[in-house]
Amino acid sequence: MNFEGKQLIDGQSITSGIEYFYAVNRTSGENLDLRFFNASAEDITMAVAAAQRDFVITRNKTGIEKARFLDAIALELEKAGPQLIQMACLETALTTVRIEGELARTINQAKLFAKLLREGNWVDAKIDTGDLQRKPAPRPDIRSMQRPIGPIAVFGASNFPLAFSAAGGDTVSAIAAGCPVVFKAHPGHPATCEIVGKAIVAACVASDMPPGYFSLLQGERAEVGIALTNSPAIKAIAFTGSYRVGKLIFNAAAARPEPIPVFAEMGSSNPVFVLPQALKERRSTIAAGYVNALTLGVGQFCTNPGLLIHESDNNDVLFHQELTNNINAAPGGVMLTQAITGAYRAGVSIRSAIKELQILAEGEVTNDPQRQSPVLFKTSLQEFNQHPQLEEELFGPSAIVITTTSPSEMVAFVEGLSGHLTATVHGTEDELPAYKTLLDVLETKVGRLIINGYPTGVEVVEPMVHGGPYPATTDARSTSVGTGAIYRFTRPVCYQGMPQALLPDELKDSNVLGIWRRVNGNFNNTSI
Amino acid sequence: MNFEGKQLIDGQSITSGIEYFYAVNRTSGENLDLRFFNASAEDITMAVAAAQRDFVITRNKTGIEKARFLDAIALELEKAGPQLIQMACLETALTTVRIEGELARTINQAKLFAKLLREGNWVDAKIDTGDLQRKPAPRPDIRSMQRPIGPIAVFGASNFPLAFSAAGGDTVSAIAAGCPVVFKAHPGHPATCEIVGKAIVAACVASDMPPGYFSLLQGERAEVGIALTNSPAIKAIAFTGSYRVGKLIFNAAAARPEPIPVFAEMGSSNPVFVLPQALKERRSTIAAGYVNALTLGVGQFCTNPGLLIHESDNNDVLFHQELTNNINAAPGGVMLTQAITGAYRAGVSIRSAIKELQILAEGEVTNDPQRQSPVLFKTSLQEFNQHPQLEEELFGPSAIVITTTSPSEMVAFVEGLSGHLTATVHGTEDELPAYKTLLDVLETKVGRLIINGYPTGVEVVEPMVHGGPYPATTDARSTSVGTGAIYRFTRPVCYQGMPQALLPDELKDSNVLGIWRRVNGNFNNTSI
Repeated sequence: MNFEGKQLIDGQSITSGIEYFYAVNRTSGENLDLRFFNASAEDITMAVAAAQRDFVITRNKTGIEKARFLDAIALELEKAGPQLIQMACLETALTTVRIEGELARTINQAKLFAKLLREGNWVDAKIDTGDLQRKPAPRPDIRSMQRPIGPIAVFGASNFPLAFSAAGGDTVSAIAAGCPVVFKAHPGHPATCEIVGKAIVAACVASDMPPGYFSLLQGERAEVGIALTNSPAIKAIAFTGSYRVGKLIFNAAAARPEPIPVFAEMGSSNPVFVLPQALKERRSTIAAGYVNALTLGVGQFCTNPGLLIHESDNNDVLFHQELTNNINAAPGGVMLTQAITGAYRAGVSIRSAIKELQILAEGEVTNDPQRQSPVLFKTSLQEFNQHPQLEEELFGPSAIVITTTSPSEMVAFVEGLSGHLTATVHGTEDELPAYKTLLDVLETKVGRLIINGYPTGVEVVEPMVHGGPYPATTDARSTSVGTGAIYRFTRPVCYQGMPQALLPDELKDSNVLGIWRRVNGNFNNTSI
Repeated sequence: MNFEGKQLIDGQSITSGIEYFYAVNRTSGENLDLRFFNASAEDITMAVAAAQRDFVITRNKTGIEKARFLDAIALELEKAGPQLIQMACLETALTTVRIEGELARTINQAKLFAKLLREGNWVDAKIDTGDLQRKPAPRPDIRSMQRPIGPIAVFGASNFPLAFSAAGGDTVSAIAAGCPVVFKAHPGHPATCEIVGKAIVAACVASDMPPGYFSLLQGERAEVGIALTNSPAIKAIAFTGSYRVGKLIFNAAAARPEPIPVFAEMGSSNPVFVLPQALKERRSTIAAGYVNALTLGVGQFCTNPGLLIHESDNNDVLFHQELTNNINAAPGGVMLTQAITGAYRAGVSIRSAIKELQILAEGEVTNDPQRQSPVLFKTSLQEFNQHPQLEEELFGPSAIVITTTSPSEMVAFVEGLSGHLTATVHGTEDELPAYKTLLDVLETKVGRLIINGYPTGVEVVEPMVHGGPYPATTDARSTSVGTGAIYRFTRPVCYQGMPQALLPDELKDSNVLGIWRRVNGNFNNTSI
């Protein structure tokens, strides 16, 4: 494929932008010979207008039609596979194995939503056929289902150049809902985004969808994102990235003349708790598993386990020694962008200066200033509590090991936590019931509670919740992974007294789609 | 019952407030001999603290237990019926028939949620039992369901002293979710609220629920609402009332250190469209039905139909004459509060001064300054469009009849509309299909689309959507009536690798509750 470095708007590769930036070979730090134009104000207006124009078509596409589009996206991604993997690795310095896995996941994600649409049950069809005999007035026929809300702005993440980027979960769930997407590419991997964007445009053509269903904007400046957020036709925003940027977008969206929902997934430090019996029985396994989860992909996951809490006992020394051994053996790596590298180094150095934190272990140290090493700190809970900001995520392979003196101190700590994407507890089946209070309180702080596992690796399955209370996200009632992600982009619409012929197929008596519905209080997939 | 005029906090009738206000006989305008203390800052803190404290209990109550609480509330409301009806009529000047109907509706609402809880399907249980054989790593067991989000602040509406007040839809849906409620009574009917609040407290005791599950605060000052909105333990707000106050609360909630969702239902002008054939065939019925819907309860409904649009043809004069006859015969009435009366009079007088609006008809004119009359204006769509603010709701029995020259002008008008709770179309079965575009565009603007009916009278049934795009509400994805209302107060929580014994019953293999679940992609109500 030849790179054009332009925007993909309304099916065309065009731009009126003048300023440009270069794609970067992330490992060498050198510019690639590929320049990308910052989307101009006019580009943004055009993309949003195309989305708005075609919403009239996309909102009335059937589940089958939208499923074909998603399957076509999956197919085009497969076709682009070899070039895509090569470019994503080049731009992000992530490993080939990781990117191959991420591509498979991205393809599966599109197929998961295609399956959801073919089944059709997701629309939450509810029907009350009324009561003509009711006094004083008859009760009318009332039916409702989920309908798309309008054009969506999606902001790609730096750390998943495929799965949370142009054809990522936000894009495919919005498309599944029937909402046109204006996608803002992360400047960390513009060439990868161009490949994916063109794959989506090809799929759009192949499946006979209108060209405004998907547009892609490039840009390394905040202005592009701000202009998109403030576009009146945009009806919701999906974002994955830092708290700082996510909060800026949230504030801007709330301050619009018409405020719109922002589904910002902003990461967290994902505490991991190790209970005494588990520590005793599985010390080595937990130390190795934890360090692996922490250092995987240079620790660049929203679900990276940045806090490790365990009760202090006479196993401390041995456990800490195992952690140290694993960290010492863990490779460093090149991080996704200069900005992330800078923030990681600054974060580690701020932590190093806190006298209540001791460095427990450091990973591979090289002379290569591009490569960053894992760093493990340790402290007691009492000391940790003197620095509330330590609960905040430090993006990268660094964590704090915290020792507590009692289960009740651990519960008090959890009660004081703010929202996280995940929490993990390692415990034996025998001891876990005694920690029911810990689990109960933890549940109120997170979107996902993991027992004897690790938070990294967000499975793309129906029940997945990738979300959580603020500040992990700006909307705890949503998830950005799993089939529930579609509901960020829909709202219930109710039809009262609507003639059969004018009702959506999902709500007609005949139930030609054979979907599961609530009909007069009963659950069935039959006709009325 | 003796009135105490205090707050109901943690099961007790107490207050540290010093300032007070009086309940008012709305028809005479005179104070009743019943004073109510404004909740003090300390009262608010106590109520929120009790809610927060007891959330640990309420969130783990079973569906059956919570259903018992709701049924007990229904029973206590029935017991309080005669006194309640008398007091609500006295405080609001609404008719006995209306209040009797509203009480029945309020009781049914509590029972609807009790039924939902007994069935248990609402939790949206999803299970993926994993795949131990998957390479490179096994897929873990992942299960998710809806869980309560925490203490909720509910602001009562002035216009439904029962159905959208202390034991209204917001309160019972939050209780059903397992969320403690701190209810802020509307100062327009404090005595009614005290009766209802005590009924809920009695139900709470009778069903063995913790006292922090429901508290009630009185207050005629904005400070009470602001302090409640800013209480850190409050996790969401439900509000029904004016755009002005709803938007203030929305802004305050978004500006909190931890922003929280606000479900504000702020009313709208609910356009009604009459198509030519229907106008020809059912002119008299529509004129009578429309005026009845407009003037019912002195027009004090969020769903009051404030705009009536029809194509101009040679039936105009006859239709307008029928509307005039009906308006002339329509009674005026005393409105809910002085503030509402003032706003209505001001609104009518602003409209009267707009030269593009002509007064088509006025209702009963009396010498009683307390009673307000219906007023119908008329204009052309072209003239209407010169005054965009006329789309905004004027709370009360006033509407604007708008004539259009063509179906396309009507569609263009709808495309320019902002969000409304409802839209209504009157058309014959023959002509409706030709107006498919009108219906399609209208659907994007409203929560409920009504054919050949009237928007007033929001049925309490499962599929009801009482919501809509901004500015009708601050969250188009929500409804405040119907079983969907419960999801305002829940969020999905995911359990990964959780031992059976520690899972909620809803997610255990055994499915002892017999609820419908998604299990490995299939829908069933059996065990695994």
